[in-house]
Amino acid sequence: MRSDTVTLPTEAMRRAMAEAEVGDDVLDGDPTMRELEERVAGLLGAADALWTPTGSMANLIALMSRLGRGDSFLAPQGAHVLDFELGTAAWLAGGMPRPLPHDAGPGKVTASAVRRAAADDGSYASLRPVLLCLENTHNSAGGTVTAPEEHASVAAAARAARLSVHLDGARLWNAAVALGVPPGALTVGADTVAVCLSKGLGAPVGSVVAGSAEFVEHARRLRKMLGGGVRQGGVLAAAGLVALEEIDRLAEDHDLATRLAAGLRERGWRVREPQTNIVLVDVADVRGTIAAFAEAGVRAGAIAGKLRLMTHRDVGDKHVKAALDRIGEVGPASTGSPGGPAPLPRTALG
Amino acid sequence: MRSDTVTLPTEAMRRAMAEAEVGDDVLDGDPTMRELEERVAGLLGAADALWTPTGSMANLIALMSRLGRGDSFLAPQGAHVLDFELGTAAWLAGGMPRPLPHDAGPGKVTASAVRRAAADDGSYASLRPVLLCLENTHNSAGGTVTAPEEHASVAAAARAARLSVHLDGARLWNAAVALGVPPGALTVGADTVAVCLSKGLGAPVGSVVAGSAEFVEHARRLRKMLGGGVRQGGVLAAAGLVALEEIDRLAEDHDLATRLAAGLRERGWRVREPQTNIVLVDVADVRGTIAAFAEAGVRAGAIAGKLRLMTHRDVGDKHVKAALDRIGEVGPASTGSPGGPAPLPRTALG
Amino acid sequence: MRSDTVTLPTEAMRRAMAEAEVGDDVLDGDPTMRELEERVAGLLGAADALWTPTGSMANLIALMSRLGRGDSFLAPQGAHVLDFELGTAAWLAGGMPRPLPHDAGPGKVTASAVRRAAADDGSYASLRPVLLCLENTHNSAGGTVTAPEEHASVAAAARAARLSVHLDGARLWNAAVALGVPPGALTVGADTVAVCLSKGLGAPVGSVVAGSAEFVEHARRLRKMLGGGVRQGGVLAAAGLVALEEIDRLAEDHDLATRLAAGLRERGWRVREPQTNIVLVDVADVRGTIAAFAEAGVRAGAIAGKLRLMTHRDVGDKHVKAALDRIGEVGPASTGSPGGPAPLPRTALG
Amino acid sequence: MRSDTVTLPTEAMRRAMAEAEVGDDVLDGDPTMRELEERVAGLLGAADALWTPTGSMANLIALMSRLGRGDSFLAPQGAHVLDFELGTAAWLAGGMPRPLPHDAGPGKVTASAVRRAAADDGSYASLRPVLLCLENTHNSAGGTVTAPEEHASVAAAARAARLSVHLDGARLWNAAVALGVPPGALTVGADTVAVCLSKGLGAPVGSVVAGSAEFVEHARRLRKMLGGGVRQGGVLAAAGLVALEEIDRLAEDHDLATRLAAGLRERGWRVREPQTNIVLVDVADVRGTIAAFAEAGVRAGAIAGKLRLMTHRDVGDKHVKAALDRIGEVGPASTGSPGGPAPLPRTALG
Repeated sequence: MRSDTVTLPTEAMRRAMAEAEVGDDVLDGDPTMRELEERVAGLLGAADALWTPTGSMANLIALMSRLGRGDSFLAPQGAHVLDFELGTAAWLAGGMPRPLPHDAGPGKVTASAVRRAAADDGSYASLRPVLLCLENTHNSAGGTVTAPEEHASVAAAARAARLSVHLDGARLWNAAVALGVPPGALTVGADTVAVCLSKGLGAPVGSVVAGSAEFVEHARRLRKMLGGGVRQGGVLAAAGLVALEEIDRLAEDHDLATRLAAGLRERGWRVREPQTNIVLVDVADVRGTIAAFAEAGVRAGAIAGKLRLMTHRDVGDKHVKAALDRIGEVGPASTGSPGGPAPLPRTALG
Repeated sequence: MRSDTVTLPTEAMRRAMAEAEVGDDVLDGDPTMRELEERVAGLLGAADALWTPTGSMANLIALMSRLGRGDSFLAPQGAHVLDFELGTAAWLAGGMPRPLPHDAGPGKVTASAVRRAAADDGSYASLRPVLLCLENTHNSAGGTVTAPEEHASVAAAARAARLSVHLDGARLWNAAVALGVPPGALTVGADTVAVCLSKGLGAPVGSVVAGSAEFVEHARRLRKMLGGGVRQGGVLAAAGLVALEEIDRLAEDHDLATRLAAGLRERGWRVREPQTNIVLVDVADVRGTIAAFAEAGVRAGAIAGKLRLMTHRDVGDKHVKAALDRIGEVGPASTGSPGGPAPLPRTALG
Repeated sequence: MRSDTVTLPTEAMRRAMAEAEVGDDVLDGDPTMRELEERVAGLLGAADALWTPTGSMANLIALMSRLGRGDSFLAPQGAHVLDFELGTAAWLAGGMPRPLPHDAGPGKVTASAVRRAAADDGSYASLRPVLLCLENTHNSAGGTVTAPEEHASVAAAARAARLSVHLDGARLWNAAVALGVPPGALTVGADTVAVCLSKGLGAPVGSVVAGSAEFVEHARRLRKMLGGGVRQGGVLAAAGLVALEEIDRLAEDHDLATRLAAGLRERGWRVREPQTNIVLVDVADVRGTIAAFAEAGVRAGAIAGKLRLMTHRDVGDKHVKAALDRIGEVGPASTGSPGGPAPLPRTALG
Repeated sequence: MRSDTVTLPTEAMRRAMAEAEVGDDVLDGDPTMRELEERVAGLLGAADALWTPTGSMANLIALMSRLGRGDSFLAPQGAHVLDFELGTAAWLAGGMPRPLPHDAGPGKVTASAVRRAAADDGSYASLRPVLLCLENTHNSAGGTVTAPEEHASVAAAARAARLSVHLDGARLWNAAVALGVPPGALTVGADTVAVCLSKGLGAPVGSVVAGSAEFVEHARRLRKMLGGGVRQGGVLAAAGLVALEEIDRLAEDHDLATRLAAGLRERGWRVREPQTNIVLVDVADVRGTIAAFAEAGVRAGAIAGKLRLMTHRDVGDKHVKAALDRIGEVGPASTGSPGGPAPLPRTALG
């Protein structure tokens, strides 16, 4: 339960990979890739889309297409682009980050904070805010969900201040399922959107970045630069197409996370109520707790100084029950001391 | 009173420039440059030092010498390297910034915040915190002073976490004078220190970055890269040597700032008590107030959403009195409305 | 016949993909990936190896691990890292390129040219040559082969001048087969080697970069930065493992290329004698010839101002015969005019 | 005679510095700076101009304003931007360099070579040539001069291929004097021009980059980024204004260089006929010869594998005579051996 990135491909995906029609996607296109990209663009309400090997590259391409030297960009504190992409937003895309507080609840920023941070004094010698980067669900805040009207209001504030908007939607599918809305309802006002086909959807490899036709044309060049232009990617796209059929299944992960959280709370743990498939637990000693869980046979992760458990397709009801039983033996009291836990502010769990 | 960067060179400086002995500082050194660099290194308790055209380049060289791709650095919110150097710390030096709150008072961070932010989870896929960047006095916080023991404790926490420490001491002279300590008392635990000879000291052009002999050797190469390797810089170094004789005079600027603040407060303005030569005024509408002041014949600046007035050698008692008289006519009430001023979060006043 | 990058995956590869055992390669490793990396490291005589989505990323990681600001690197003119990777060697890895003439024959440089270009005047203000980048087979020179003793002598000259050596072996397998030596005989003196599993070997996606254990540890971090750290990459690695069984089959491609060149020459075309699977044809008007070939049903590419035809697994004897028949109708005379063809110096055929 | 960069400021310059009217050039301009910039813009036939601390920064700003990731630029082999600016054209400005052979004579390229190298195959995955960088006089080729019509023809070829043109005119004044034309006659078709006020003109510090008003506005921002935005730069601009009165005096340096070359030739040295103030001498062992000259009291430099002697204002007839006498004792025979000199391909003499 360390991360939903460990989800294994299904039999249907493997079969699709084996049977995929492929071409050379760098030269003149791979038909299965094209089908996947068009499908995702449609789901997101975008004109076009481009496959990338990872969500990090999808985000990076979106940021590179917009940021340059002397620009700054806004993002909620703890955003993946700030903390989990090795600084590429800064040193490679070229933007100076402006972290925004979660004024509107965990993982969420307010329109007024965006307006304040987007103000430009007009001096030639000042940083220019040009981009707002949102994240839905927000991973390090605990898989928190931003509703369509919240998203739209913040995006509109950014656009009014002449900022572009990028949405890191690595788990946008989870947000859509949790809210009971189509994914496209969560992309209003965004210029670019990144989504993952791996993670909860379970494709072995692959993400997609969507936007205007002009953006995708430029993104293709950026992907080549970064070494992400694969040849017969259709085999992966085929798995991605199957993965897209799995979106509704995420509701099971969310249910399971709710049950896991309830069980932990009953056993005395301080748990945040999960909104999707991520369960954050406040513990005094994160490293120690992870070790104790591991000994008990439960693999946990950490993020933003908290313990993180994630549900995904390869975790079932019986796993959660077994985990709760084992964790029960660990006990919240045994895993921390008021004196001072080792700080562990982040991990690369993705 | 927009900024102390407008200070004009004195007669003594001009004479020194006219008489300076010079050489080619890129080829085999300029004797006056060398003298200046050794003098500053001595004042700062450093092994060696290097002249640079600007304080921005001095900071940038220090950061470039330490930061690389995948590294992060800590700095107090509003630090010059974060907000006023066009993002070079990020896109050029390569570091992802981690702004620290001013937990220890305006412009000051705590050792425990440094420890927390310096924690490294050891994953190959995580950002690595490698540098703490301090600023004394802290410009955008209002010229606030960090005392030797405060500085030393924070620097020691950073070093214990295996971070390097850079001190942006553009106005370190002001801090030293305000505290009544030698500048070297404020550099304990720092690997590199940047200081300016312009600003309050009044040299027309020039800053210095100090550190170990190895650092300075590398810094010379970085300076050449950035296009800062000048030839007969001795003319500027000569003015810098005169400027160093002016350190004690800064006490006058501080006195004047105190009087200016008192006068403003009497006239109903919300003024922060100045610690050095910077007076910050809370106003509802910064742009409007600057304009109103300008009409009244007083040139003010802005920083971090506040009005900024600075005293320097070319501002005397009579200027302050005249300014107060004129500002009195403006009146604090006329310059803001509760409804909503235009945001103006920063300027490039340096 | 535009490029061997269009080679389609075999049935065996597809089956392997469908049955591959996989894990999360970013977190704690994917077993099939690991097996592939160890297999390739063994073939190349390297301590360890790392999978990458593309050969461009494999090269880029090797260059990033060695180059920095103020460094220069040597490479034969027309090298893939110079002309076909969108300048990443320069702007991303940070090296100033020093193209070397093909003094030792097409695609090959001499040890003395390396020695001359590697000379460092020792000035702090000069570029520092730190890396030699070789390419075997050399793509834009026409798939030319460097023999073990030639390679070793040039690599030794570089090492003697304290340069590192990177070998771009995207088609190293072709060189090994053409020479009748094991691939490891062609990597002597190289610090890092990049090889492709796609191209002639026919895996759908994937390359590998090999080197010391320290290099691979660092390379893993660089791959994550660039967005190349995939999760269940084992599905691709499984195809790669099958591809490695196909190395000897490349001899057929070489035979076919020889027959294709002979047939073209008989029909009056100016053809370079192929050494591996690349046939370059000197034509006055490259664009026009490509168009004429296309009309005749033969897809050709271009590189370095020449027409390029490549043989690969999906090209058989009958295709070559059919192509020659069709090209015969085009005729060399019809495709150029003394007046002035449009220049076409390069393509992105990879 | 190592370099004209060692030229010392004159009494008139020192006086001008001492009396200069100055302001804050980052905030709202320095009047003397402005005067200098307008004067230079006028001389070069440009709309506007910007002072920079060094010629390297002037070039870098011009390149940064035009180049980006995925772009390439053309420049004659041995150009200052290629070999003597620590690779900033590549890693900082972002361009992949395409060195052009000196097909039109030392330091000079042909229009047809530009046309060939500027050809773009239109593929999204290819480097895009966007800039031609010329150098007049060409330093490492021996201070060679490009005539107005030669320059104009090459620049026109670049423009026809939709390339921008930058002229590195660090010693453009020398070219103008040697040709007997105004400097503006040598900038036709260039978008940006960099010139130095130091070197032969003898100002202690300072260069200027000229171009359109839009370029200069952007250049001001780039200068701030690089740490080149000085405050009371008027002291240096004042010296620059005096330096501009010295252009015609360069004829003396050229005469002296001719006499020096003749004297060397008489004494058996293999000397290239100087076109301006640079004398290149072919010697077998450059390092050895420099050392031998130094022992004889003559300071020589090296560039591009040759011995370099330069004349400048601080070198007079008597110095040349004395130098020839001393060099005579060294003798060409004593400074080389057929067996193999140490290679010394370049220096940072500027």
